[in-house]
Amino acid sequence: MTDSPPELPSLNRIRVVLVETSHPGNIGAVARAMKNMGLTELVLVAPKVFPHADATARASGADDLLAHARIVDSLDAAIADCALVAGASARSRTISWPLMSPRDCARRMEAEAAAGAKVALVMGREKSGLSNAELERCHVHVNIPANPDYPSLNLAAAVQVLTYELRLAALEAASALPAGEVLERDQPLAAAAELEGLFAHFEQALATLDFYDPDNPRQLMRRLRRLFNRAGLDRMEVNILRGILAAAEKAAGGNGR
Amino acid sequence: MTDSPPELPSLNRIRVVLVETSHPGNIGAVARAMKNMGLTELVLVAPKVFPHADATARASGADDLLAHARIVDSLDAAIADCALVAGASARSRTISWPLMSPRDCARRMEAEAAAGAKVALVMGREKSGLSNAELERCHVHVNIPANPDYPSLNLAAAVQVLTYELRLAALEAASALPAGEVLERDQPLAAAAELEGLFAHFEQALATLDFYDPDNPRQLMRRLRRLFNRAGLDRMEVNILRGILAAAEKAAGGNGR
Repeated sequence: MTDSPPELPSLNRIRVVLVETSHPGNIGAVARAMKNMGLTELVLVAPKVFPHADATARASGADDLLAHARIVDSLDAAIADCALVAGASARSRTISWPLMSPRDCARRMEAEAAAGAKVALVMGREKSGLSNAELERCHVHVNIPANPDYPSLNLAAAVQVLTYELRLAALEAASALPAGEVLERDQPLAAAAELEGLFAHFEQALATLDFYDPDNPRQLMRRLRRLFNRAGLDRMEVNILRGILAAAEKAAGGNGR
Repeated sequence: MTDSPPELPSLNRIRVVLVETSHPGNIGAVARAMKNMGLTELVLVAPKVFPHADATARASGADDLLAHARIVDSLDAAIADCALVAGASARSRTISWPLMSPRDCARRMEAEAAAGAKVALVMGREKSGLSNAELERCHVHVNIPANPDYPSLNLAAAVQVLTYELRLAALEAASALPAGEVLERDQPLAAAAELEGLFAHFEQALATLDFYDPDNPRQLMRRLRRLFNRAGLDRMEVNILRGILAAAEKAAGGNGR
């Protein structure tokens, strides 16, 4: 495809906040996931070990995000200027709070960011997530639907899913989301008359080859029509198929028109 | 929330195939991502290093998936029984092929799996992805929308996004009153091995008929592969096409196998 990428400035106003991350490798992997999805701002609340070679290794080219990461002492400091704060949460909590799906949460975050607000996505510790006190700092909670028998995603994997939804929300808002199935066609579609020419050629070639379904001769052409209509043939494909039919007719002593 | 989780049996018929993975840690992280999303079947095509302590460490409780992972020599062996094969692909390729978004691709994969078919998601090497020959084995290509300046996701992160969409599709299907997509099919889809048989037969018959594109002989088979992969052939359609090829070979004095 040759369309130039849409600019998604709203993503620059959505920061990812990691609270007391234990493994520096996870911080690096989060930076990579963010940059893949077009986010730029990473804030670390009291990381156990940072900077560290593991972080740089797993960042794999997103080390600019690591270099610019802000390190703060408290969650409050990380989110002070944010108008919307979403906290990643396991599904069942004693504390009831607005709980959103990643898709709905991403749309809301993106809309706020597009309107000019600073927005934060807050991720907890690898083992224990966010504390209740921290969750109460958040305006909404977001939960990734997961296998109830094994629900705990790797920290960077969770960030990947949530930032993927943020990118989709931004693309959606920019109306730049690729259509469902983009068939990168290098040839024009065959016109109906060209398809009819192909089907007539099939019928003639099959007669020349003495090939038919003895039980139901009409059924064979119906199946070929259904198959090739479903496929949506382009002009070159029609030419190739007719070329093969002509070669077969010639071999059988027909006229190979 | 206290609602009991829906059972999602379709996810058991969707396998993840990793082709020539270099880092065993990534294999472990893929297993964790899969189990988090409720998938169970992992197939490894010629992994560089496996099993390995890094794989077990990153699997982090998903080591049952590693223990049951099947190791095979070739992509063909990994997908032989699959009626739908989706390959992860970068966005721009010289060869055009049906390219789907993760969401649409997941819906289609889940619908086929729910209808009883075996389905595969094929992921390429960390550095170089899937080769063109491997991509041509796939019925559809799936691309995760990413930052065009930094588009390459970590292998396990990509699997996380794609299996997340598969889980959403399965949840969606489980809660939809009427089935989301009704596949009006009177014949089972052909498996990948049956399609390979068809393509080999095409190649043989075209040689017998002395039919080829003098400018680019390989391009012809690629176009036929693309056409028939796109169409999603059922078993009877494969039989009809092979019957026609055999008749043409016989007419040309070949063996008409």
